[in-house]
Amino acid sequence: MYRGGYTGKVLRVDLSTLTAKEETLPPDVARDYIGGAGFGIKYLFDEVGGNIDPLGAENKIIFSLGPFTGTTVPCASRMAVTAKSPLTGAVGMALTGGQFPTELKRAGYDALIIEGKAKVPTYLSIRDGEVRFKSAAGLWGMNTLDCQRVIKDDLSDQNIRVACIGPAGENLSRISSIINEMRAAGRKGLGAVMGSKNLKAIAVRGTGSVPVASSDKLKAAKGEMARAMKESPALYPAFSKTGTPSNVDNTCALGIFPAKNWTATGEFAPAREIGVEAMKTRNAGREFCSGCPVGCSQLNLARTGLYSGILAEGPEFETMYSFGGETGVDNVDAIIAADRLSDELGLDTISAGVAIGFAMELYEKGILTRGDTGGLDLKFGSHESMVILLQLMAHRQGFGDLLADGVMAAARKIGRGTEKYAMHVKGLELPAYDVRGAKAHGLNYATSYTGADHNRGYAFQEIFGIPVPYAVNRFAAEGKGKLTKWNQDVRCATADCPTMCVFILDMAVPHMARENTAALMAAVTGNEYTPDEVEKVGERINNLALAFNVREGFTRADDTLPDRLMDEPLRHGASKGNVITRDDLALMLDEYYTARGWDRDTGIPGREKLEGLGLGYVADRLGR
Amino acid sequence: MYRGGYTGKVLRVDLSTLTAKEETLPPDVARDYIGGAGFGIKYLFDEVGGNIDPLGAENKIIFSLGPFTGTTVPCASRMAVTAKSPLTGAVGMALTGGQFPTELKRAGYDALIIEGKAKVPTYLSIRDGEVRFKSAAGLWGMNTLDCQRVIKDDLSDQNIRVACIGPAGENLSRISSIINEMRAAGRKGLGAVMGSKNLKAIAVRGTGSVPVASSDKLKAAKGEMARAMKESPALYPAFSKTGTPSNVDNTCALGIFPAKNWTATGEFAPAREIGVEAMKTRNAGREFCSGCPVGCSQLNLARTGLYSGILAEGPEFETMYSFGGETGVDNVDAIIAADRLSDELGLDTISAGVAIGFAMELYEKGILTRGDTGGLDLKFGSHESMVILLQLMAHRQGFGDLLADGVMAAARKIGRGTEKYAMHVKGLELPAYDVRGAKAHGLNYATSYTGADHNRGYAFQEIFGIPVPYAVNRFAAEGKGKLTKWNQDVRCATADCPTMCVFILDMAVPHMARENTAALMAAVTGNEYTPDEVEKVGERINNLALAFNVREGFTRADDTLPDRLMDEPLRHGASKGNVITRDDLALMLDEYYTARGWDRDTGIPGREKLEGLGLGYVADRLGR
Repeated sequence: MYRGGYTGKVLRVDLSTLTAKEETLPPDVARDYIGGAGFGIKYLFDEVGGNIDPLGAENKIIFSLGPFTGTTVPCASRMAVTAKSPLTGAVGMALTGGQFPTELKRAGYDALIIEGKAKVPTYLSIRDGEVRFKSAAGLWGMNTLDCQRVIKDDLSDQNIRVACIGPAGENLSRISSIINEMRAAGRKGLGAVMGSKNLKAIAVRGTGSVPVASSDKLKAAKGEMARAMKESPALYPAFSKTGTPSNVDNTCALGIFPAKNWTATGEFAPAREIGVEAMKTRNAGREFCSGCPVGCSQLNLARTGLYSGILAEGPEFETMYSFGGETGVDNVDAIIAADRLSDELGLDTISAGVAIGFAMELYEKGILTRGDTGGLDLKFGSHESMVILLQLMAHRQGFGDLLADGVMAAARKIGRGTEKYAMHVKGLELPAYDVRGAKAHGLNYATSYTGADHNRGYAFQEIFGIPVPYAVNRFAAEGKGKLTKWNQDVRCATADCPTMCVFILDMAVPHMARENTAALMAAVTGNEYTPDEVEKVGERINNLALAFNVREGFTRADDTLPDRLMDEPLRHGASKGNVITRDDLALMLDEYYTARGWDRDTGIPGREKLEGLGLGYVADRLGR
Repeated sequence: MYRGGYTGKVLRVDLSTLTAKEETLPPDVARDYIGGAGFGIKYLFDEVGGNIDPLGAENKIIFSLGPFTGTTVPCASRMAVTAKSPLTGAVGMALTGGQFPTELKRAGYDALIIEGKAKVPTYLSIRDGEVRFKSAAGLWGMNTLDCQRVIKDDLSDQNIRVACIGPAGENLSRISSIINEMRAAGRKGLGAVMGSKNLKAIAVRGTGSVPVASSDKLKAAKGEMARAMKESPALYPAFSKTGTPSNVDNTCALGIFPAKNWTATGEFAPAREIGVEAMKTRNAGREFCSGCPVGCSQLNLARTGLYSGILAEGPEFETMYSFGGETGVDNVDAIIAADRLSDELGLDTISAGVAIGFAMELYEKGILTRGDTGGLDLKFGSHESMVILLQLMAHRQGFGDLLADGVMAAARKIGRGTEKYAMHVKGLELPAYDVRGAKAHGLNYATSYTGADHNRGYAFQEIFGIPVPYAVNRFAAEGKGKLTKWNQDVRCATADCPTMCVFILDMAVPHMARENTAALMAAVTGNEYTPDEVEKVGERINNLALAFNVREGFTRADDTLPDRLMDEPLRHGASKGNVITRDDLALMLDEYYTARGWDRDTGIPGREKLEGLGLGYVADRLGR
């Protein structure tokens, strides 16, 4: 049945009973959901009921791989991690790369479902199907890099790969991440889900191989992909040498690099201080995910003051924003240090930076004082305070505790009308790209099933001018509904599910992402899809994820943006004067729901729509 | 010829020409010098002439293993690193453990001799005899742990082991160390020797096996050793659970835990704050050197304030002294942080701590002011300043530059009579054990060929009351000459050369160290020794090392102690009132030279003595 790509096995681990069992991956699930995010969301919707506590034993966390992972398809060592998010209450799904995904696949699994809660700190060791539960008593409190090192020694195997949480996840920070190597399943507080289950780490070693259905077809599909990558208009070859930080320069030029908690976009635009040329002076090599020929991940070494010698894998562009623009910090070494520290502590860099930027705005406005901050000077640009604050947040010490659950929770605790300064959608802190100058981004942030998430339907058309599926005007509201649906569905089907690096198919060669995914699927798994069928997988999963959120109570009213983005036009730079008015948003949402075939008043799909996607059982469950 | 234990091969690498060649290890060298420190000092004396610049291309650095390394003899994954010390100008020899030594042996070598100087930052990759020179451009500036991780990725092999330097070694700090895993060849500034050669790291992978001459004899000798270890009076079984920090309690009780730059020994005795019970609250497991059943190396996790979550492998007892007692710091988490930071930066913890304690005394005396320290408050006990200062030292930033070469150099730069506060012998900072209450330690510090080095002839008799070779009174000067010779020669022959962990044969079962070494040598190498012949190897090497120092100009006048230890009796605690008077020292030195058969006026061996040890050629070279 599993002609290739899939192992056909799901490993289900119950931490409450310390038992593990293998299950069969249903072939129709493999076909209809492809893998990765598809599997994660399918199992999440089916198995995790409404209104459970995301930090309770009833939540589950699913690590799922794509059919290409572990094969010779390049750039496919990716993994989706899915749970009900403790940050948003919605679907929490984040992807990570590196080496761990390939290792897990080669250990024999398409997915790992973890349920229940261990009585004491525990880590999981998986070795080619042999599952062991090990004490994590000594590991508790350890940072993520030390944890990985110590586990390798503990298991006397330097070749294992480890995904783990840091102090932030242990302390149930709702903005905590899961780290493998120096990569993160960063957003939506998935680290806290592991922490709530007393699960410090998962160690994996796999020596199996993943068969493919047709070597000849695979060779052809890979050739096609490689040719297209070489001709990519936007990203190659410079991308392998600069990685994502080149986007600092780009977005500063476009006037959409958000600054000082989104109050100074276009005004504070430190491309010279923290852009590509600045980063080149810090470069210390690059890292490659398993099977990747690109190696976009830059190693950077801080070189001034007390930051000297601190190494980060990154910062990526989003982190340049969150610890740079958002906080008004233009000290590149402080950003490197904050990035490294966040990885060690297991904090999401985006949410953590936005939380700090939020606190800085309140401090500058006098809403928070030095008395509140425990003596920390939190003016915009205070990089030393930023670095200290990260530690306080992860350990929930002093003032850090207030910010450890993100801006929505912090604003609720502080009260006094501070919610309007809390830059989030559905609880998820805003990523970079000031949407006032890039409106499809705004619509995507408003509608992504995970909250404000650039990765669920990134509008590269607005940033790189790539006319796929058609050219767009970034300042216009019109036409963004259909575009956003396309971006979300295609991203899901060609990147999040297969699981393929977004920088390859989805962004480098978007004009052939659907076709190439179909060709690779046929070659690797033997399952045949038309390009439209590929896209429909993405649509199916976006509908299923939305259904999960509907069950949690989310409606059209939650598909919105922070007031600031609708009330305060940009005052500086190349996007000056632009704003997403409430009318703009309403228009875009109407367009979007129409494109999706959802009810425009509620933003919810009806039975007919769901049945058309093979999701009749979902309509039943929702009682529609 | 090499029936076992040895590979028979020495790898000689010339960084100036980027060439490597294999040489034969002469069988008589194998027999007469055993290995480890023996090989290192033999090659150093023979090949490195007098008065060369230790940081010039003419210096060599020798990594040498023992005959037991890589065999099934436990606790033998040790390696001697030898060069002319840039800190003392004398023999610089330090040992390290962990995994690297076994890996190098299995790669096929008894010793690795590195000479010349690379034009640009370089690292060496050795893989089963395949030697490659790789660019370390990206690694330059990286801390030692990141460096190891990045090299493993760079070589796509997680099983390699790496010995490397941190920023301190790169910046030619004369108190810089070499780090492999989280272990150090710590003392005498050997990191700077690598740095001066532009050699960032050595990566090694070995898959060979090391033959033994007689499996039956080996089984018997190992059995004997294991039985003795189990019956060890001093160290087992508690030692594996506590490691060396138990000695904090012990030396505090004896009134010899040095405090506040040796001004407050017995008065500041923080056994409760940083002793065994305090460390238990920080324990996070232990680490094992390759083939060691004991695992004395404790992992400790800092748990308060901004130190929270910092992990150290250690601190060992000596580091509890240098960052604790010596600096007046009784914050256990700060000591853990300083230990970790020193390993990352590649700074010797003992010398770095003593340098900081020295600066603290000058600060308290008003000789150094806040203006001098760049604003740092350096009162004794200022743990935050201590941690910051380590970073400044390794990077030679601001005030740190002054201390980066140890106390002798710092006192010379500061002048104003500060040499009397500089606690060192021959430039090497004093290790723990206030010798005023442990006089054999004092004699050993005065006479060790490496300077004030507890590891070259540790007087366990004074600390643990072990009556081997006879019982001693720690307060007495009399009888310490013969004892120190025995300690130095036996330590050298049974630990530093074979290379065997000191905590096993030498300290745990000293009553049978000579015999067991002979039995193991016969079993592993086929070379037969009487116990006296084993000891004589140690004597030979101590003489050869002394000859190197003589050639560098050292005489009896250099075999001395800091004035403070001879002028200021202990004022507190269980050793109160004791001091090593100048007469005591003269008496001990006379006894010592007599026991050694050296000239009492000069402290130098004559031709007859040298010839009796098979060192006639050394007498020739010295012109005696």
